Amino acid sequence: MTQLSPTPRSTLTRYRERAATDRQALYDLLDEAMICHVGLVLDGSPVVLPTGFGRDGDTLYFHGSTGSRNMRAAASGVDVCVTVTLLDGLVYARSLNNHSMNYRSAVVHGRAEAVTGREAKLRALRAITDHLTPGSWDHAREVNARELAGVTVLALSLAEASVKTRRGEPGDDQEDLGNHAVWAGVLPVRTTFGEPVPAAYHPAGAPIPDHVAGRAGRTQSRTGPLDGSR
Amino acid sequence: MTQLSPTPRSTLTRYRERAATDRQALYDLLDEAMICHVGLVLDGSPVVLPTGFGRDGDTLYFHGSTGSRNMRAAASGVDVCVTVTLLDGLVYARSLNNHSMNYRSAVVHGRAEAVTGREAKLRALRAITDHLTPGSWDHAREVNARELAGVTVLALSLAEASVKTRRGEPGDDQEDLGNHAVWAGVLPVRTTFGEPVPAAYHPAGAPIPDHVAGRAGRTQSRTGPLDGSR
Repeated sequence: MTQLSPTPRSTLTRYRERAATDRQALYDLLDEAMICHVGLVLDGSPVVLPTGFGRDGDTLYFHGSTGSRNMRAAASGVDVCVTVTLLDGLVYARSLNNHSMNYRSAVVHGRAEAVTGREAKLRALRAITDHLTPGSWDHAREVNARELAGVTVLALSLAEASVKTRRGEPGDDQEDLGNHAVWAGVLPVRTTFGEPVPAAYHPAGAPIPDHVAGRAGRTQSRTGPLDGSR
Repeated sequence: MTQLSPTPRSTLTRYRERAATDRQALYDLLDEAMICHVGLVLDGSPVVLPTGFGRDGDTLYFHGSTGSRNMRAAASGVDVCVTVTLLDGLVYARSLNNHSMNYRSAVVHGRAEAVTGREAKLRALRAITDHLTPGSWDHAREVNARELAGVTVLALSLAEASVKTRRGEPGDDQEDLGNHAVWAGVLPVRTTFGEPVPAAYHPAGAPIPDHVAGRAGRTQSRTGPLDGSR
């Protein structure tokens, strides 16, 4: 197992027992989640924006319009913090104070770099596409030169990352363990795909390709070479 | 309809057509989502952390341990940015460039204030509890004085907030509309609750109270006085 690379910024100061210093846990989380929250400092104030992303090895990719002020700021070499969170359950305890959440979250610190050059940009866009809509890269119309010029693609190294996890049972105090009148346990939270809805301009009754139809009712499938670990 | 209060920071510079300047949309999103991402600046760098939250009118509440460095920083009167995002669907288009996501996101800027005083703190904790685990406030053991002292509760005004939404069909280019060989449409993404899992220390076979059992298979119910608008 490759260890994460803790730094002062990525070392948790609380709940160290929840810090899973396991790179595989980072990959699994990133491959299952679909959106990240990108934090940066604009005019001295924090800004947090949601966006889709992809992963290729130890690089996280996200993209946006070249006209976006936030994307220009993120691409200018400033520090960013990218956080990815999956909520797995609501934890009901005997006491209100021990109510909690089961979750997995990754926090990545670093400086995002703009991906330049046609091949590198296409490779990054493919990582994002393969992550969010696997199968689309070979199915849909390719990105043309004008479209490629209109998108800013950013790369962030996963070198400085931490993963925090809470799972399992509630952690009730000794004094509350005998109070069986209060329910204690976990209500799982699941993110699943529904039935695909064709666009109005798509021929009615046309078959839905497997790369879309096969996802209905399922959670996000893992992508990439490190699949299948759970 | 109450309008949001746009400021330069909360005015979207791109995709203005997606900005739903409707306070009800803000309430609905906050009442449906369970976690937010809190951004702040620590030692000059952005930090983005996930946490649960609650809402009471135009105030958002979140909490953490008094020992948390991030909570102390957030409580010190610095600017924070709290972002709440719900992913509603993956948008497949005829072209890769028009692939997108259906989502709702709220971005709230402001300075968080520590909630002090027993009554105000309990009211804020109740807002969080009623939001995440409705029914628990009256069912579980109340918060005692020691526990109340150990939790930092922060309040953030919703005065400076923006909501951004994408919904509906893919937006394909004219040149691609006739290319029916490529599937276009939306794959819905849903967050639902699974079957409750009792704690190992809870009596086997004991009934699960309605406030927990009634949520299985459902999405987050809306809470608060502004319910039922959708």
